[in-house]
Parts: sequence; structure tokens; C-alpha cells
Amino acid sequence: MIYFDNAATTRPERAALEAANIYLEEQFYNPSALYAEGYNLHRKLEGARRSLVSHIADPDEFGIIITSCGTEADNQAIFCGGRRGNIVTTMGEHAAVYAAAQEAGRRGIEVRFANLNSDGSVDVDHLLSLTDDKTSLVSVMHVNNETGAINDINSISARVKEKNPRTLFHSDGVQAYGKIPFTLGKNIDMYSVSAHKIGGLKGTGALLKRKKLVLQPFIWGGGQEAGLRSGTENVFGINVFAAAADIRYSGGVEGSFDKVRAVQARLWELLDKDLFIRISPECGSPYILTVGAKGVRGETILHMCDDEGLVIGTGSACSSNAAKRYSRVMQACGLRADLLDGVLRLSFNPHNTLQEAEEAAGILNKVVRADSDMMK
Amino acid sequence: MIYFDNAATTRPERAALEAANIYLEEQFYNPSALYAEGYNLHRKLEGARRSLVSHIADPDEFGIIITSCGTEADNQAIFCGGRRGNIVTTMGEHAAVYAAAQEAGRRGIEVRFANLNSDGSVDVDHLLSLTDDKTSLVSVMHVNNETGAINDINSISARVKEKNPRTLFHSDGVQAYGKIPFTLGKNIDMYSVSAHKIGGLKGTGALLKRKKLVLQPFIWGGGQEAGLRSGTENVFGINVFAAAADIRYSGGVEGSFDKVRAVQARLWELLDKDLFIRISPECGSPYILTVGAKGVRGETILHMCDDEGLVIGTGSACSSNAAKRYSRVMQACGLRADLLDGVLRLSFNPHNTLQEAEEAAGILNKVVRADSDMMK
Repeated sequence: MIYFDNAATTRPERAALEAANIYLEEQFYNPSALYAEGYNLHRKLEGARRSLVSHIADPDEFGIIITSCGTEADNQAIFCGGRRGNIVTTMGEHAAVYAAAQEAGRRGIEVRFANLNSDGSVDVDHLLSLTDDKTSLVSVMHVNNETGAINDINSISARVKEKNPRTLFHSDGVQAYGKIPFTLGKNIDMYSVSAHKIGGLKGTGALLKRKKLVLQPFIWGGGQEAGLRSGTENVFGINVFAAAADIRYSGGVEGSFDKVRAVQARLWELLDKDLFIRISPECGSPYILTVGAKGVRGETILHMCDDEGLVIGTGSACSSNAAKRYSRVMQACGLRADLLDGVLRLSFNPHNTLQEAEEAAGILNKVVRADSDMMK
Repeated sequence: MIYFDNAATTRPERAALEAANIYLEEQFYNPSALYAEGYNLHRKLEGARRSLVSHIADPDEFGIIITSCGTEADNQAIFCGGRRGNIVTTMGEHAAVYAAAQEAGRRGIEVRFANLNSDGSVDVDHLLSLTDDKTSLVSVMHVNNETGAINDINSISARVKEKNPRTLFHSDGVQAYGKIPFTLGKNIDMYSVSAHKIGGLKGTGALLKRKKLVLQPFIWGGGQEAGLRSGTENVFGINVFAAAADIRYSGGVEGSFDKVRAVQARLWELLDKDLFIRISPECGSPYILTVGAKGVRGETILHMCDDEGLVIGTGSACSSNAAKRYSRVMQACGLRADLLDGVLRLSFNPHNTLQEAEEAAGILNKVVRADSDMMK
């Protein structure tokens, strides 16, 4: 089976599971416990936190709040970062930011959504025009999960701070961390990441945050995560996450980036251009290739591909149970109405091969041709 | 090594890990994905949710929101259940309820804390006197995590509803689920549980909720957990939780309850009554035996026991990093000042044996006698 839905979730890395296996049955203690076994776990988690930060920032400047998922990290950034005036975000955000911002709006904060360019990146001029002296938070995703478009968050955050130095800048980095070569610039205050998108486990995410930034807790209780996220630490999940990130970053992410780019390029090269148009930008994340298939339904194609041993997505898995027929993000990109039904998202990980790309292209061409012939 | 800190966390059940192992590397898909592999996981999770509920309630009456921990479940109950007028809770609550209620207070909800009896159970008359026609939520923990005292939540919730039928009733059941024989009565609206206290993994909890109850989400996003808790489902953790609960409830919890009661009784029987006084009630949860040792420091005893191969707790592990010397709950119980420093919590699981109880009593007697001799 060829698995090309890695933007939805990835197969956990065996080596990461093995590295953390000791924390399942053997080192099972509560890291808040005072005896040596608990304290040793506490120390181990401190190391994992620093390691997770070190791949993209200086751990002396950035702290990290381990959360249960990217969604929780995004919620903490929105609800605890945007407490006054207005919040500026984009039409392209994942629901974890978008729905949280809408809820902040119902709680009395004004929320402003910036338009998108056709590739899913944010219209930066529009974003800046929405930012003013009352803006407490700007949130712009790093890599768009539906198209792979990359927002230049270091540049955007610098321009936001020029307009209002007191505005906090958050970015949802769930589709970038462990994939795209970058480091957090000095104008970024908060950054969300997720374990299961890079070979870790579902149930672990994190919000990186500048150490100087005073942030409210989102979950209140026993005071774990330096008082910013209570609840007994998910020791196994955190250690799998740290090990998975080590794997992705060992020797730099550039190697995987280039390998995945070759897979993406080969797949696009072999897709029949009479059947598919490309939605993903040429210079976006190579981990995502989103295409539109004319005159067919994406969900039908998805099932037909599944029968042929090719697993793909249609837009974001996270919004598929919302029972909304068309993607909000694709509509915000201004995608032609006759293509909205036929959006397919092919997403990769560093283990995918050129041969898989070739086989997948064959299946996709065959399936879409057959389906569109039938529709005629 | 004898592990008597099971109220802090338990060793995961090997059989539960093995039952869920397939969800680590093999069935790793996103349960929101539309293809068969994703949908099959979605169905499997539906079964796990019903199973988790079925042990203590009718799954046709009670739904379940899977959360990342008991703390998150408690936070959702407090913040989403207590949105108007006042919240009534107790001085004995775990920090997950207590600190959340305090935060609700800062957000403009009046919060009222009911006094405790000397064993850590709530003073029910005081609780009822605080409940009025403005009370939107009453939250009373089922089993006190520091003393093991059991609150009769079915009776208390009935009396609360007599005073105000519109008041929601929540209980933190983290130290009861999988341990104490009971079923949720008809006046309980929400009930929090946690996986890692009963042989599951850290990182999974749940809020059971009456299906008729309309509740706000606490974490917003892609709409998982029927829209009430967004974030990609922790498939492995949920399946371990369901399997661990199956183990605890197989043939009823009464067998384990009686076995643990015998361990608790033997330990107490063998402790030197010149050195220890009992804080836990006689008719509380047998899973917890909290004692006071006169004239010694609990933390010192904990470390000395650790050196002897006996792992125990001092009050709640969850509040130990709060750097508060005395337990808020012990003070609310009215514990004598000269005992506040010497509180030890011994907590069990069904795998503990009478022999372990005997050895532990020997170590505790020796260590406390040595330390108090030294203090003279």
C-alpha cells in the first residue's frame, strides 16, 4: 500500500517508539513525584523539551509548553495570547486556529481574517492593513495544510511588529516543524507543533513560546509545564516526540526536504495534465501536492484509489467530519467552482520513494480517467 | 521494589498495551480520514467510548468526551458547565477542579467552597447551604485523592437537585473509576475519569456527560469528539484506556476492591500505632491509606523509604511542584499542626500483595522510628 496522506498523520517511527519504550512499563512513574524515580523522569522531560526547541530556536530564548496536540497549542495561543482589542488571522488557518478565533469573537474580541492568494498563502498587505494599535495577536500559519503554501513568517512578523510592537505573533507550524528548513526569527512569540505529523504519536503537541512572554495557562490544575499546562505529563508521548524530531532533524532537515521534493516532482511530472491542474505552488512545501481533478468528486476518487492500494486525502482530514462539502480554504483561494469538488491532497514523508510516486501517478491517472469517462 | 504510590500513577497493564499495540505502527491512520482505514479506526473508537461508559452508566444515556487527562476533563466541566451565577465546590478538590474554579472566579463567576469533615469528605450540609437558585454548577469529587474519603455523590447530587433542579452536577471520579463499585445516578450530569490511574497511559482521560446535556467545547477546531473536543484522537491511548478499564471491570470491580482492602488492612494493622495516626477513614477507598507520622517530615521519610525499596507519596503528587509546604486539603481537614509535616500517602493497585504490605510496614516502622529518635 502507498500512503500519501502524511499531512493527516504519519506512521510513527519505529526507532522513536523503541527509544521511548522504557517509559511505558519500566519508567512509568509520575514526574511530579518527589522520590528519585519521579525526579529522574522530570529531568528527562526537561531534556526532551530543550531538544524539541533546539531544532528551530535557542532553548535559552524559547521555552516550550507540551500540550496534547497541535490544536490545544493553537487554542492556548489564541485564547491566552489574544485577550484584548482585536485578533488578526487568515482565511487559510487550520480549524484549530480558525474556530478558536471565531469563539474568541463570540467572547467579545474583534476577529479579523486576512484574504488568501490563489495558492493558499496569506495576502500580506491585507493582513497588515487589518493590524492596528488595538491588535493584541496576529496568527499566521507557517505552511498551509491544504495547499503546502509557505508563509514567510519571519518577514511577516517583522512587518507586523513595525506596525505595532506590542502585538504578539503566533504561527501554527504543524505542517512545517520537522519538514521545512528554518529557524524562529526574533519577532515570533509563539509557535505550535505536533508530534504525529513527523513520526511521533497522536496525543502530543507543543506550544513554543518566547521565555520573556508572560502567558496565561489554558488548562489549570497541579501546575505542570511551569504552571502553564496542568495535567500529568504524557511521558511516553513526549519522549517519542523528542526522538521522532531527532530523527527528522538529524543532519538537518534539508536531506529529507530534497528527497521529498523529488517525490513530489516525479508525481506531478507523471500526472496527466488533461486530467489534473496543480493547486499547490511550485515553491511551497514539497510535503504536500494538492491538485484539482476536473469534473469528478474528490471523495469518489479517494475511495477508488484506496481500492487500488493508494491512500490519499481530500483537503484537511481534520475538517472532513464537519460534513461541509467544499473546503473553506479552497474557496478563499478563489478556486474555480468546477474544481471545488475534485480537490485531492497528496502528502508525503521522507520514507516515500520515487517508485511509489510513479505507481501513484499511474493509479491516479487511471482512476480519474475512468471516472471522468463515466461522468460524460 | 514495592510501589505504593498508585494514586499518583499506575504501571500500565501489559495486556492493555498489547491489546492496543496494533494502533501504534499498523493502524496508525487518522480516524477522521475518509478512506476505509480511517473509517475503521473511527468505528473502533466509537466502540471504545461506549465500552468506557458501559462500566458505570448506560451508554445510551451517557456520552463521553475523550480528553488528554483528568485535568482537562475537570477544566471542561468547570469552565463549560459553570457559566452563570455561582459555582459551588469543595475545599477537598484536586487542583484540576480547585484551580479551575479559582480561575472561573477571576473571570467573574462567584465561586463557593464547602468545608470538609476531618476525613476529607465534604460537609454536605455546608455544601447545600451554599447552593441556591443562582448556582449553575456543583462539583464534588467522588474519592478524595489525599485521604481516600468517599463522597456519596448519588445522594449529594439528588439533594443538590432538590434545591435547584437546573444546577448541573459534576464529579471528579479520577480516584474512583475502575476502583470503587458504583453506577452513575440520575442526578449526575458530568463525571471525569483518567486512564493512568487504572493501568492505562498518561495522556488520556475523559469527561462522561449526560447525552441530553448541551455543553460548550473547551478545545475548538476540527470537530472531533462530536464537536466537543477537537484535536486528532489519541488512538493508541484511547484503546489502552478501554482495555485497561476492561481489565479492572472484568467480573466487576468488587474482587479487586476486596483484595486491595485486605492489603490496606494488613498494612495498617502492622504499622506501629505509637508512630502513626490514621487520617484515612475506615470506610473510605481501600486504594488509599493516608497516615500522619508525628514529629517527622514526610518528604524525609519518603526519601528514606525510597532508599529501602519502598515508593510512597506525600499527599498529592500533582501539587508537589507547587512548592507549598502544607497540603491545602489536610489543613481543610483540620489536621493537627504537628502532623501537617508528616503526612504519608500509601496507595495501592490490585496487583499489590499482603506480603508487600508486611514488608512495607516493616520499612515504615523502622524508618520513622529511626528518624524520630534522631529528632529527639
